[in-house]
Amino acid sequence: MAGRVEHARQTGYGEEEMVDFQSASMKKRNRREGGSESFAGENGDKEYSVEREFDGKPVPSWRQQLTFRAFVVSFFLGIMFSVIVMKLNLTTGIIPSLNVSAGLLGFFFVKIWTKALEKTGFLRQPFTRQENTVIQTCVVASSGIAFSGGFGSYLFGMSETIAKQTAEKNAAENIKNPQLGWMIGFLFVVSFLGLFSLVPLRKIMIIDYKLIYPSGTATAHLINSFHTPQGAKLAKKQVSLLGKFFSFSFLWGFFQWFYTAGDDCGFINFPSLGLQAFKNRFYFDFSATYVGVGMICPYLVNISVLLGGILSWGIMWPLIEDRKGDWYPADVSPSSLHGIQGYRVFVAIALILGDGLYNFIKVMSKSGKAFMEQVRNRQKSALPLTEDGPGPIVSFDERRREELFLKDQIPTWLAYAGYVLAAVVSIITLPHIFKPLKWYYVLVAYVFAPVLAFCNAYGCGLTDWSLASTYGKLAIFVIGAWAGAEQGGVIAGLAACGVMMSIVSTASDLMQDFKTGYLTLASPRSMFVSQVIGTAMGCVISPCVFWLFYKAFDLGVSGTEYPAPFALVYRNMAILGVEGFGSLPKHCLTLCYAFFAGGILINFVRDASGKKVARFIPIPMAMAIPFYLGSYFAIDMCVGSLILFVWERTNKAKADAFAPAVASGLICGDGIWTLPQSVLALAKVRPPICMKFLSRAANAKVDSLLSS
Amino acid sequence: MAGRVEHARQTGYGEEEMVDFQSASMKKRNRREGGSESFAGENGDKEYSVEREFDGKPVPSWRQQLTFRAFVVSFFLGIMFSVIVMKLNLTTGIIPSLNVSAGLLGFFFVKIWTKALEKTGFLRQPFTRQENTVIQTCVVASSGIAFSGGFGSYLFGMSETIAKQTAEKNAAENIKNPQLGWMIGFLFVVSFLGLFSLVPLRKIMIIDYKLIYPSGTATAHLINSFHTPQGAKLAKKQVSLLGKFFSFSFLWGFFQWFYTAGDDCGFINFPSLGLQAFKNRFYFDFSATYVGVGMICPYLVNISVLLGGILSWGIMWPLIEDRKGDWYPADVSPSSLHGIQGYRVFVAIALILGDGLYNFIKVMSKSGKAFMEQVRNRQKSALPLTEDGPGPIVSFDERRREELFLKDQIPTWLAYAGYVLAAVVSIITLPHIFKPLKWYYVLVAYVFAPVLAFCNAYGCGLTDWSLASTYGKLAIFVIGAWAGAEQGGVIAGLAACGVMMSIVSTASDLMQDFKTGYLTLASPRSMFVSQVIGTAMGCVISPCVFWLFYKAFDLGVSGTEYPAPFALVYRNMAILGVEGFGSLPKHCLTLCYAFFAGGILINFVRDASGKKVARFIPIPMAMAIPFYLGSYFAIDMCVGSLILFVWERTNKAKADAFAPAVASGLICGDGIWTLPQSVLALAKVRPPICMKFLSRAANAKVDSLLSS
Repeated sequence: MAGRVEHARQTGYGEEEMVDFQSASMKKRNRREGGSESFAGENGDKEYSVEREFDGKPVPSWRQQLTFRAFVVSFFLGIMFSVIVMKLNLTTGIIPSLNVSAGLLGFFFVKIWTKALEKTGFLRQPFTRQENTVIQTCVVASSGIAFSGGFGSYLFGMSETIAKQTAEKNAAENIKNPQLGWMIGFLFVVSFLGLFSLVPLRKIMIIDYKLIYPSGTATAHLINSFHTPQGAKLAKKQVSLLGKFFSFSFLWGFFQWFYTAGDDCGFINFPSLGLQAFKNRFYFDFSATYVGVGMICPYLVNISVLLGGILSWGIMWPLIEDRKGDWYPADVSPSSLHGIQGYRVFVAIALILGDGLYNFIKVMSKSGKAFMEQVRNRQKSALPLTEDGPGPIVSFDERRREELFLKDQIPTWLAYAGYVLAAVVSIITLPHIFKPLKWYYVLVAYVFAPVLAFCNAYGCGLTDWSLASTYGKLAIFVIGAWAGAEQGGVIAGLAACGVMMSIVSTASDLMQDFKTGYLTLASPRSMFVSQVIGTAMGCVISPCVFWLFYKAFDLGVSGTEYPAPFALVYRNMAILGVEGFGSLPKHCLTLCYAFFAGGILINFVRDASGKKVARFIPIPMAMAIPFYLGSYFAIDMCVGSLILFVWERTNKAKADAFAPAVASGLICGDGIWTLPQSVLALAKVRPPICMKFLSRAANAKVDSLLSS
Repeated sequence: MAGRVEHARQTGYGEEEMVDFQSASMKKRNRREGGSESFAGENGDKEYSVEREFDGKPVPSWRQQLTFRAFVVSFFLGIMFSVIVMKLNLTTGIIPSLNVSAGLLGFFFVKIWTKALEKTGFLRQPFTRQENTVIQTCVVASSGIAFSGGFGSYLFGMSETIAKQTAEKNAAENIKNPQLGWMIGFLFVVSFLGLFSLVPLRKIMIIDYKLIYPSGTATAHLINSFHTPQGAKLAKKQVSLLGKFFSFSFLWGFFQWFYTAGDDCGFINFPSLGLQAFKNRFYFDFSATYVGVGMICPYLVNISVLLGGILSWGIMWPLIEDRKGDWYPADVSPSSLHGIQGYRVFVAIALILGDGLYNFIKVMSKSGKAFMEQVRNRQKSALPLTEDGPGPIVSFDERRREELFLKDQIPTWLAYAGYVLAAVVSIITLPHIFKPLKWYYVLVAYVFAPVLAFCNAYGCGLTDWSLASTYGKLAIFVIGAWAGAEQGGVIAGLAACGVMMSIVSTASDLMQDFKTGYLTLASPRSMFVSQVIGTAMGCVISPCVFWLFYKAFDLGVSGTEYPAPFALVYRNMAILGVEGFGSLPKHCLTLCYAFFAGGILINFVRDASGKKVARFIPIPMAMAIPFYLGSYFAIDMCVGSLILFVWERTNKAKADAFAPAVASGLICGDGIWTLPQSVLALAKVRPPICMKFLSRAANAKVDSLLSS
């Protein structure tokens, strides 16, 4: 389950810094969903014991935790969340934490299932929190592939659509168009390595080091609360609200569809702030999804995104466009990277890399320091490390949890054998899929991967930040440079990125899930099996969902509904890696340096200043996203923020309890509408009406045409 | 104040039957705003005395009740409500009861005024309920002219715009275009007669007969409740909600404006139910006004309107259009009454007349019976008549009220002299304004008017139904036939309608106000003065507001924003009166007979069946309105109903307390936006964007035009 959060964080913004605010949001949620008690074990809060509440309830064996119904429900939820994650991937790359909705909906569906069976008298096994954990783990593992598969980043970055936009390195050897077959194969050979890589270390990280894994802990608490009587009541209300907003959002998406007969028709082209603002991509595009995303993301993120939009589309791009013909040739197409688009993409990359570098160093040094301390402490006193101080007192909860966590073991030989086997298959297969990716590149990647995976899982356990996409970018530059331009280095770099990201991200996902399992008394073995099954599902579901989008819509074109912004960004990083700063437009490199430094500087100021000031300093990563896309989604998100703000002002308690459900409903409803929408598109059913926005002058012309 | 309700009822639908449901709505409001106690005097409910609560508060003298601030506030509210009523007149002719908002806003503004003065220490006189009554009376009298002036019916029916659509009787002698000068003059000479006509009878009707006047009573109760501490708190909340929805509605109107660069642009042309439905005028036109109206009107009205729309535009007109070329010539313009438009207008008239006739006979017989009984009872025992039984016990409230009602007398000679003087001026002036209206027609009208005014005021006191527009129609037929076609009978008939309606409607308004004054201890003298001042204001404000609309927008054209439906209906009635059933299209007369009979029959069934069945039988008058206009406003109103229904389901108490405030906010905000909108139109400031709805085929054509 926790994996979802993780993914969300990384992908979330396709970037690791996003982790920062996702972390903030998760902590907030922790507070919301129970507060101190959820960290009972860690914080030494002995007054209240979660496990005593569950004392009467037997814990099913690990085989009993893996029920058929759990996987049926997981399968459908996996499809649903894959669609949503895919849509988010391809629109802005901002993916909020969906684990609350996954948790709620998993609970909801199995409850319906068990209720129905109870009535018919066929219910053999009651619904337990362990089973709930299994569902969430499976759903998150499955929909996580939709992110780590790189459909919005490295994988789609190989395609011709994206390559055409770069003008550089778009020879046949540097292009690999999406095909259902190789995508599924690729995912199967790279996605399981991460699962095997860290299994032997789970006891050390969960029990000995007592790493926090905030997201995993929060998820566990959510599940625990659902299965207490009072929690179930709240959950029911939340589910009902989620259902209402789900329906609203779905119907709203359906309604919008009718008015999109042409390319520039419909609500997504509504110039709600005027035509001039619309031209610079400032408008409210009526997307229920991003209003929901705005409600989940912290205010700072939404404001940062908006600020980035104002800085770029409001100030910089118009100024640069004034220099058209001087700074860059006037006759290039608007989507060419030699024109204004080049500034947009490369300045955004610079800011992302600056921010990424700063956080990479920060997390690594923090993890390293904590790890060293840990080892020293262990040598000295064999006491477990806790964040908040000494923790030698072992509470009832802790004893019970450790007992069950250690009961079901996963044989270490299985982990090693699995890793080696998967690696061998992978080394043999991958060069066949990607010609430029030589077998020894893959081998090198697999030798270093477990170390990086451990670093990431450890850092993530401490700080809730996952750096998976940073490791992916590292692979792009290293392998890309090694392969070189002539040998199809772009494809090699992007593929290596995929290999690395998959391992690093699934490894830390798995560890988050172990933490969740630890806190809900789910067996590590059932967690592992669930994750394996979920991953296998994801390897089939995600490419199919992507294929649906790919066939039904025009993907990857700037200014359309699905611009897939990070696909172009990743490809350009690969090109940069292969041949350095080639034909960037004039002054672009200077701007890039400035923004790279700016990204580092802003982060430094944030960390150096007190908490009071820091919460007003924008997040560079969040600012970079609208550089390329424009501010329309930022405005949606700010509307979401505004709704939340007003709600919190009117009724704080209600807003805290129900805002995540409302937001999830909005996101899921709109996301699921994409499914019938793409089916309609594939069936060539076109919407009947075009809602068009014309300037007064254009309207006069059109009127004379229509009346003639 | 009560006059507003009255007007609303009459005009409401331009028709008397509407009174029926307005009455229902008012009764509902009575219940809402205090229930039994508001009828304390009448129902003999002795347990609670309103006047004892106010016992400590002195009643100001009649001169003190007429404060300067009251008339300043009334002036501005008068403008506001005139704009709203005018807008409603010109869009559908459905005018809901606005007295709640008038009451709330009057209270609100004077409260602000007094609060501000209190702080500066300049407050000489506290705000009393008597002053509040004065404001409401004045506002209602002033905005009432916007209805009884016939700007949406008889007066505008004289204009060339409307005459052009009839093809009959549109020679110069039968046309009188609106001019600011003659309109103000006309209103001044006809509007005051009603005030004088019934003044001498006020003691008989209010104290002796104890007529109920439900609207007047409800209004009085509202005002009384505002001035008790608890009522003031509720009023404050209501005002705040009204303010919120006022702002929302105003801003929404403003927002919509930006997208209306062309004729068929903007939200009012949003084909929300598809293009085919849009062609038959089924769509939600995003009008905050009619959503608000729908929230105020009873469910039955909204459903009746929708049913009428479905029957006409959904079934009948498409069937008749299939017979184009057979039933009516195929080459006439769509707005010609010889084509499909003829069926629309005349079938609607037939239904309205059938319904009107039935209710006229019903109310007259009821009133006559009650009056006879009254007279008999008086002769027997000198006891006052009450609706619910004997009422010989005189309560504290009653004694106090009678005492104050009888304190300030209005000299009878003043009333007679005023009436005669006004009549003489009118008889001399009117033939100069309307050439075909001979002085003896006016004289005859003024001889009969007081009798009809008494009938109407008496019936209205009993049943809350005002038949003013029926008396107006009577005048159209009688005077029109008398004048004859050659002598400009159309203009004569329409002008006579105005003369009659003004007297009859203001007379019953005044009596309602006396009732309100009686219950709030306001002096009859201050009521009378306030009504006179309000009427004078209205005689200037209403024509000016109409003039603004007339200059700023295209009025009276079917299918546009301001079709002014009743203008055409009234003119056609006048033509019918002058020359009988002339050149109606084929089978139209048969349909008219059928619907005329149907109107009577449905009413009969309604009255004959029990209450349980009756509330499911539609109201013919309400059904007739969309016959001509289409169902778009019916859909708005049903949306309002739906909102109210859901709200009542979720929280009945809150919905009952605040729905009128929300509805008023929606209506007033949108209405007031019309003011800046028309100023913008006059200043030739055009909106910048056109939101256009094109079919897929048309969109393809437009796209190729725009890209070329």
